[in-house]
Amino acid sequence: MMIRVVYLLVRPQGMTQAKFAEECQVHYDMSHNVPALHKYEVRLVADEPSDTHVPFLDIGPFDAVAECWFESSEKYEEYLASDIRKEWFEHGKTFIGQLKPIYTRELH
Amino acid sequence: MMIRVVYLLVRPQGMTQAKFAEECQVHYDMSHNVPALHKYEVRLVADEPSDTHVPFLDIGPFDAVAECWFESSEKYEEYLASDIRKEWFEHGKTFIGQLKPIYTRELH
Repeated sequence: MMIRVVYLLVRPQGMTQAKFAEECQVHYDMSHNVPALHKYEVRLVADEPSDTHVPFLDIGPFDAVAECWFESSEKYEEYLASDIRKEWFEHGKTFIGQLKPIYTRELH
Repeated sequence: MMIRVVYLLVRPQGMTQAKFAEECQVHYDMSHNVPALHKYEVRLVADEPSDTHVPFLDIGPFDAVAECWFESSEKYEEYLASDIRKEWFEHGKTFIGQLKPIYTRELH
């Protein structure tokens, strides 16, 4: 069963959107070298409309949505133990102001 | 350019997690009939850890993360105009307590 983790990212106070986008690209490029990380995506936030058809959940604003995929809990442990993963997280500290991780599971 | 919208869902007060999961499955099954909707995913929230390596963004809890894919803005307009899409949203009103939509864009 694939492990998938969604992340909501907020940029640090004082960092421009352009600089944040640039660092997201660096983080994406670095992800290709991280062991046991099956897939990584990061996308910028384009719009956060509040005119929803059900009651609006008034949170945000956010700057990016990211997602990590792992093939198994063994792979996830391998990822956590990796020095390259630790370097990747060090880079994260340079451009992520606040982070909300959401571990998800399939409906069945 | 693919249009992708991420949704954070909170179940209504008083609805059990089991009932919410059941309605998410119904909503997923209904999505296959919605015109111009390229892809739809909905996953349940399994865990929301707060021990992040960067400052934690203290929001939530959430019950599900969903995502809609559209192939173009024309397809998105077609989706919005569709009566089947409107029925789908009516079903959404029966099990989504609060909703946060996030329109995303690729880094480049």
